[in-house]
Formats: sequence, C-alpha cells, structure tokens
Amino acid sequence: MTTPASTRSGGLPYSPIRKFVPFAQEAEACGKKVYYLNIGQPDIPTPVSFWDGLQAIQKKVLEYDFSQGNPLLIDALKDYYNAQFGVDLAHKNIQITNGGSEALIFSFFASCNEGDEILILDPTYTNYISFAHMMKVTLKALPLSIENGFHFDDAYQLAPLLTKKTKAILLTNPCNPTGRIFTQKERESIVKFASDNNLFLIVDEVYRNFVYDGKQETTFLEYAKEYDNIIVIDSLSKRYSVTGARIGALITYNSEVLETSLKLAQARLASGTLDQVASAHMVRCCPQADLDAIVIEYQRRRDVLYSSFQNIPGAFCHKPEGAFYTVVKLPVKDAEHFAQWLLESYSHKGATTFVAPARGFYVTPGKGLDEVRIAYVLNCDAIKSAVKVIEEALKVYKG
Amino acid sequence: MTTPASTRSGGLPYSPIRKFVPFAQEAEACGKKVYYLNIGQPDIPTPVSFWDGLQAIQKKVLEYDFSQGNPLLIDALKDYYNAQFGVDLAHKNIQITNGGSEALIFSFFASCNEGDEILILDPTYTNYISFAHMMKVTLKALPLSIENGFHFDDAYQLAPLLTKKTKAILLTNPCNPTGRIFTQKERESIVKFASDNNLFLIVDEVYRNFVYDGKQETTFLEYAKEYDNIIVIDSLSKRYSVTGARIGALITYNSEVLETSLKLAQARLASGTLDQVASAHMVRCCPQADLDAIVIEYQRRRDVLYSSFQNIPGAFCHKPEGAFYTVVKLPVKDAEHFAQWLLESYSHKGATTFVAPARGFYVTPGKGLDEVRIAYVLNCDAIKSAVKVIEEALKVYKG
Repeated sequence: MTTPASTRSGGLPYSPIRKFVPFAQEAEACGKKVYYLNIGQPDIPTPVSFWDGLQAIQKKVLEYDFSQGNPLLIDALKDYYNAQFGVDLAHKNIQITNGGSEALIFSFFASCNEGDEILILDPTYTNYISFAHMMKVTLKALPLSIENGFHFDDAYQLAPLLTKKTKAILLTNPCNPTGRIFTQKERESIVKFASDNNLFLIVDEVYRNFVYDGKQETTFLEYAKEYDNIIVIDSLSKRYSVTGARIGALITYNSEVLETSLKLAQARLASGTLDQVASAHMVRCCPQADLDAIVIEYQRRRDVLYSSFQNIPGAFCHKPEGAFYTVVKLPVKDAEHFAQWLLESYSHKGATTFVAPARGFYVTPGKGLDEVRIAYVLNCDAIKSAVKVIEEALKVYKG
Repeated sequence: MTTPASTRSGGLPYSPIRKFVPFAQEAEACGKKVYYLNIGQPDIPTPVSFWDGLQAIQKKVLEYDFSQGNPLLIDALKDYYNAQFGVDLAHKNIQITNGGSEALIFSFFASCNEGDEILILDPTYTNYISFAHMMKVTLKALPLSIENGFHFDDAYQLAPLLTKKTKAILLTNPCNPTGRIFTQKERESIVKFASDNNLFLIVDEVYRNFVYDGKQETTFLEYAKEYDNIIVIDSLSKRYSVTGARIGALITYNSEVLETSLKLAQARLASGTLDQVASAHMVRCCPQADLDAIVIEYQRRRDVLYSSFQNIPGAFCHKPEGAFYTVVKLPVKDAEHFAQWLLESYSHKGATTFVAPARGFYVTPGKGLDEVRIAYVLNCDAIKSAVKVIEEALKVYKG
C-alpha cells in the first residue's frame, strides 16, 4: 500500500516555463527545429574569465566551502557594489546562495511566519509562487494590466492590500516577466511605503544590468543604509550568462535576517566550491565593456522582437525597458493550449516556437489567460523566425 | 526602525559542527595548530576521474541543467545501483539534488504536512533538526545510550512514539554520528514496522560504502520494490571525497514523492552543471579498488582513534562499525564548554583539537551533555596527536 504523500504538495505548481519541456523534446525527436523562447537561458558565451578561474583551481581535495560563502567571492561582490553603486557593504552583509532561488527562500523564511503575507505586483516571477507555497507565505497581488504597459502609479496603490499579517513587499527590478523598470520616483515611493508600514522590502535584482535606451543601472541597496529592512536578491546567472553555475546572494544590512540566513545556510552546509571560486575570478576580471556589449545585443533583440509583433493582427507586445522578457497578448482564448499546440501539432518551414503561458506568472486567478511570456534570448534572426512561426500559426490555429 | 524578523527563525539552531569555527580561526591566528575533528571533511584526494570529467567539459555557455538532474549523471547512478546491489531503477526514480541536504528537505516536504511527525533514533544527524524546523515537522526520538553501544533491539521499540500524526521514519545507515550499522534482521524489522504502520521510510545512506570489519554495503532500496514508500537519500560527497561538489540524490519508486520533488526542483531551476557533469564521469570511471582503499584507510583511522581513547581515564569511546564518526563520552560536565575551551584557552605542544559537542545531535533535551562527536577524517598520526591533546587537556581542565 502506498502511503499518501503530504497534501501540501498539491498546491505546488509545475513550472510554466519548464512543464512543456517533454513536448519540446518530442517535437525535436520528430525532426522539428524548436526556438526556445520559454526560458531565460541566454545563448551568450560565458565569460572567458569564468573558465580561466576554473582552470586555475589547483585542489587535491574538493572541500566544502564556508556556509556563508567563499571569502574571495564575497569580497569580489563587495567591491563590485562599491565600485558600481558606491554601496558600502561589510563581509557579513553578503550571504552566498544556490542561485537567486535559495536567497528568495531564505528571505521568505526570515521575514515571515507561516500565514504571513507578502505584497507583490502581478504578473510576477512564477517561482515566487512555489517558494511562498513551500514557506507557507501568502502572496497578495496588485494586478497590473498589459494594456497600459503594466503601469504602476505609486507604491500607495498597495495600501488596500495591507493587513496585520503583511510583513514584506517583493519586487523584481527590472521585472521578470514584464521588463518594467522602476523610475527613481517609484523607487522612492516604494521605500517610503515600506518604511511607513514597517515592512521588509525584498528586491530581486538579478536582471539589474539589463537596462536599455540609455537608462542607468540601480540597486535598492542605495536606500538600505537609511532603511535596513531592504533585502536584495542577486545572482550571477544572467549578468554573466552563467546560469549553470548556481551562484546567487542575499544582501542586507539587517542583522536578524543575516543570522537566520546563516543558520539555514549551515544546515545545507555550503554552495558549490568550483562555481564560487571561478565566479570570484570572473566578478573581479570580466571587463565591463564585455558586459556592456551584451546589453547592447539584448537591446537589439528587444527591438527585433517588438517590431516583429507589430505586424501580427490581434497581438499586443509590451515593450520592455529592461531584463530580457516581455509579455505578449495573443488573439487566442487559451494561451496555454496554444503554446502546447505549437509544440505538438504545428510547424512552419520545419520549425516551431516554445513560449511560456503567462497564466503561471499571475497570482490573481483568471489573469493572463491569453498572454505568453517571451524570453528574447536568441539572436535577432532566430527571434524573427520564431515570431514568424507564431504569426503563421495564428492564421491556422482553431483554439 | 528595524522590522522584526519572523519568530520561526528563533528555533533554528546554529550548526554544532560549525558554530565554533570562529574560535578555531582565532586559535589559528594565534599560531596554534588545530586538528579539525569537528566536521566530516575528509583529507582524501578527490578522484582523478572527477578532475578529468571537469577538464573534458567543452562548453561555450554554461547553461542550466535539467531540473531533475543531468541525464548522464542519472544514468551513471542508475547503473551503479544495478551493478552494486542489483537494484533496478528507471531514470524517473532519481532526482538529483544540491547535496543530500536538499534531498532531505524534499523528502520532509513530500511526506509530511505541517505538524506531522517523523520518528528518529537519538542521537541523529544534527541538520535533520534544522530541516524539520524549516518544514514544520516534529521529530520524535527514541533515545539510545552510548553505554550499551547505542543498541537498538527492534523497530517495534518505536511503537510507543506512534501517533496519528506520524508519517515517516528517518534513519541514517551507517549512522552519523554513532557509526552504527543496522543488521539484516534490524533492517527487515524496520521495513516491516514502516509497512505495518503505513509510514514513509527515509534512509540517509550517504556513508553507505564506509563499512568495516568485512561487513557488506547495503541499501534499503533492496526492499523498495515490495514497499514503495522507501526514500533513499544519497550523496557523492563522502563516498568520493568531493564535498565541495554539491551533488546528492533522492531515490524512490514512489511516484507522488517524485512528482513533488520535481516541482520543488523546478522552482530552484537546477543543480550546478559543472559538478554534475564531472560527477557523472567520476561515477562511471572511478575504479572500485580506489574506493575500497579509502575504506581500508578509514578502518585504520577508526582503530587508532578507538585505541587512543582506551588510555584516557573516564573517557568512553563508542567503537563505530561504519561511517567516519563516533560519539565519545568525556569526564566533563559540559562538553560544549570543554570544546570551546580547547580552542580558546588550551594547547599542547602548540596544537589543539576541534570537536563537535554531541548535545546538538540529540533531539531529546538533556542528552549528550558530556559527549562529543568526533569525525576521524585525518591521517592516523594526526588522530593520535589530536586525541593526545584531549588526554592532556582533561588533566588540567577545571570545567
């Protein structure tokens, strides 16, 4: 007799980004070319400095690193924040984590008891929903609309969502999935609102450097000396195109949050030593010009994507200002069905396109049903072809 | 104003293995040599096959691996279980995790709702206490005693601990911290007890190959075809002396547990690609004779440790049959104070010894106060010297 598993497993969603992977594999097995616009896996080469850092490792025993993180990596990040933003961090303010994911889990645990609430803007990064579920935290969403560019007046729009259980606000900036970037005025209103209501402010800045049209990189850590309840989630995965090295960080001046994070980190012993040592070298040595060139390339891709969608009747593509995602409204009833159909039943010139249904990026039920999230992580030609697949598909799709 | 952190952080212990690290660092800064017997960090070289596997990686982009794990690594483990134990696993039965730690977190989440109970034997691996705390699971312990070799008659000794909330039994075999190995009769009684009471049986086998005195390696997966609620926790860290590569696995035939684990795995995206690819090569290519030689070396260390303690008045060293730990009772009132004092205030011929207080390995309050856990992960000479430090220290320690 099979023992019943826990019922809390039930509320956990499959990743909307990854759940159609078997269909994509099947499509490839049938000889179709698949354009992967479903996942933020850039095609940009990992910096040479990462591979150099790896090559230089001369260890006989691949030992546990420190639970807090490799000291060289912590120092490299400390210097990066200082040089780039004038933010003055101590070694103890940085907890290295297994990607940004683990930093989020630590933040949820440290800020909220079971049943506490975190305010977010909808749509949001889908995995927040899973982490909240794991940590028994409720996400309360302010829904924004694609029609007006996911516009957000002011943090005080969040006020009606406040309850006695509200403990934090969680934002991504630049935003996955919308590509929105907060203006300085918005950032200030968010910090003020958090401070007025004594809330933790968790900001996921893993796309920090992907800002277009001459905009400046920013970090909420610039406000953290005055308001120490700010927790920044960082990751090297996207900035350096090194997603396979699972290196993130939780950064804060809040000593209670740091203490809890270190205890959680000690329980799981350490992050990977090789990834940390190679990353430390990369953060120190990767030329800024190389990173800037990558951002210029993404801006080009963004432009191609955006203009390609202008020709598709009934489709509406939000123009992102940063990150490398956008949300697109399609003239279909059920974008999830459409996404699966693209992989299972459609091809154009032997190719099809893999997009993520946007529904899974909304906490608010019923939102995003006719929207998809697109990661523009392929070169411009591939993006053109991938959108052409969608254009042709919509002409024949019956829904 | 600092926002109060969650109160659930409060119950989380600092690792008893790692919490005195600052004192050890301080001792080293003062010029003392420190013998690290506190942590299971072997000094055995990582196999050449791991470094070869790493060297052979020819990637331009270090990409995310699959959420379930790298297919080559899963296949290598599948073949290892088949060749070593005749256990027949499918690809889907193996979820790769960030060390054994993450596999434990997944198991707790998949088997238990909040407030559910897991039965354990005391003393136990200290981090189970942290994972249980994170996942809101209660550990109910059957205390065993060092005086009779942590003897355990029969799984039915656990019966008085059963309640309606009991969902699982969690064991390590070979045991960290005691070095105990279950006999075949004990293993069978455990499976029968779990089955009679419809419980998940989670067995942490990360020390599986460290068995001495001619004993055979075993796995509870041998019983899992008949009873599919068995979940085995595996890790490469100790078997191959590669603790810095964070590669573990959750292995089961239970489809609900696998489904939940995959959802949790998708939320955190993937384990490190480099560690997985290099490990896949290592699991395939590391000669069995090399692994056997390591076990012979540990048996030698075990013997040296055990015999060194025979000369210390009032000390009692449990003789371990496997793993590379043991628990030692010392003629002190407070082993935690003694351990800290060794680092802070004592040296013998310029050296001191770092041991982990055993109190943190007991769930039952008041147990293990005069005991320490020792990891015999240094060479025989170092172990002799390290125990000599303890012997001399006890002569002058005032308590």
